[in-house]
Amino acid sequence: MKIGIIGLGLIGGSLGIALKKMKLISLVCGYDISKENEKMALELGLVDEITEFDEMKKKCDMIFLAIPVEAIITILSQLKDINKKTTIVDMGSTKFKIVNSCPDEIRSNFVATHPMAGTENSGPAAAFDGLLNGAPVVICDDLGADEIHIKRAVEILSFVGMKIIFMDSKSHDHHVSVVSHLPHAISFSLVNSVLKEENRRNIINLDGGSFTSMSRIAKSSPEMWVDIFKQNRENLLNSINSFKNELEICTKMVENGEWEKLKNWMYEARVIREIL
Amino acid sequence: MKIGIIGLGLIGGSLGIALKKMKLISLVCGYDISKENEKMALELGLVDEITEFDEMKKKCDMIFLAIPVEAIITILSQLKDINKKTTIVDMGSTKFKIVNSCPDEIRSNFVATHPMAGTENSGPAAAFDGLLNGAPVVICDDLGADEIHIKRAVEILSFVGMKIIFMDSKSHDHHVSVVSHLPHAISFSLVNSVLKEENRRNIINLDGGSFTSMSRIAKSSPEMWVDIFKQNRENLLNSINSFKNELEICTKMVENGEWEKLKNWMYEARVIREIL
Repeated sequence: MKIGIIGLGLIGGSLGIALKKMKLISLVCGYDISKENEKMALELGLVDEITEFDEMKKKCDMIFLAIPVEAIITILSQLKDINKKTTIVDMGSTKFKIVNSCPDEIRSNFVATHPMAGTENSGPAAAFDGLLNGAPVVICDDLGADEIHIKRAVEILSFVGMKIIFMDSKSHDHHVSVVSHLPHAISFSLVNSVLKEENRRNIINLDGGSFTSMSRIAKSSPEMWVDIFKQNRENLLNSINSFKNELEICTKMVENGEWEKLKNWMYEARVIREIL
Repeated sequence: MKIGIIGLGLIGGSLGIALKKMKLISLVCGYDISKENEKMALELGLVDEITEFDEMKKKCDMIFLAIPVEAIITILSQLKDINKKTTIVDMGSTKFKIVNSCPDEIRSNFVATHPMAGTENSGPAAAFDGLLNGAPVVICDDLGADEIHIKRAVEILSFVGMKIIFMDSKSHDHHVSVVSHLPHAISFSLVNSVLKEENRRNIINLDGGSFTSMSRIAKSSPEMWVDIFKQNRENLLNSINSFKNELEICTKMVENGEWEKLKNWMYEARVIREIL
């Protein structure tokens, strides 16, 4: 089996490394809009070879899209004429708009997924072996993909070591807005707020680890995250709103000196110890 | 030199391990309000022996207070009759109220410090060798401690491997409210907001690492953090307010679909890559 990866950054590159190790895969070829990324991906051994987009469409049995979510919509429209036997798998962080933008011609080929893995780094140099191993991956099966393509995606992703979760695209977007997109909006806001209030010296000197934790994901790629916020706008705004209400509860307790109530509220949050 | 540690949790216990390795220190004794903690600290080898509070006052050259900030104020009032030669060092996360609550009788003995180190865990079992090594420690020198006591604190803490930063207590409280206390208020709020919106299954399945990072410090001790919020109330409320303004900027850009502006705003946050 020959596999193509479009987008050779953190996710695409890490997928490439994992696929190259699989004996049943004879070729892992890569394509990236940036020639520099292609060169680096080849040098780092993330893929076997670099292949032009049109050539990839012809020769691969399966094509993964590991690019920002707005670019996925564009690329899907350029895959309309692909063979019915080729499986197309997107790996974007939002699903509903992507699923609904899929051209009818390739609706049966297309499997929408979201690997729940990542770091704050991006680009081919950020890719590493094991990023996807053990991580969950959501597969959205609500859009009419042929069973053969869904099964193929399940097999390949589980061989990479991922834990399969089936979910419809609308639920996916709602839940990730809470668990992933909201934390990013907060981290970006916290960092920008602290940068306005404090100089570098104080940040370096006075961080005992909490700010490091809370600012890590604000280092993520703006290109990638603007697209995600754009595609998941309504859900994100709802999640931000719930968070604002909770922060207001905290603020009021501090303002009113309700310390016992505040302590109980902090204890409520400790339930997270049992979950993560 | 004999050193006493009051409070054998994460900070006090880790300090004990570090001090026990120093050849110039003949005894590290510990006291904790919880007999269970004392027993565990001894079993874990965090201190050489457990000593009663009154005995510690008599036999130690230096006493560290590694307890919640409200308890520090109480204990200081019980140290009023201590020998002028004994150095008293508190390690609380707030400084202004503590410094100002110090009884006149021991004002010359008392050195207010804040080690910028910690984890989300607490109690003797959370203590470990190396927690303080390499971490910054603020020493507040604005309250009339004798030079001999300040020098002793500087020596011991630098031998433990800490990086000394001098700062007045008012500035300290302002700056840590931004860099440390605000992140905690946000983390507690985020976790409580997400727990209201999501079930455990979705949190576990859909966390790609961002929520893990952002929720870590919400696992911290409520007892410790209620006291900190109480003592640094005004500064914390100001910091929360600045953050709220920033989150509102983010919200408005998403609401209005100002994607280019949002991307630039995300890029502003990436400055943090150069700092942390």
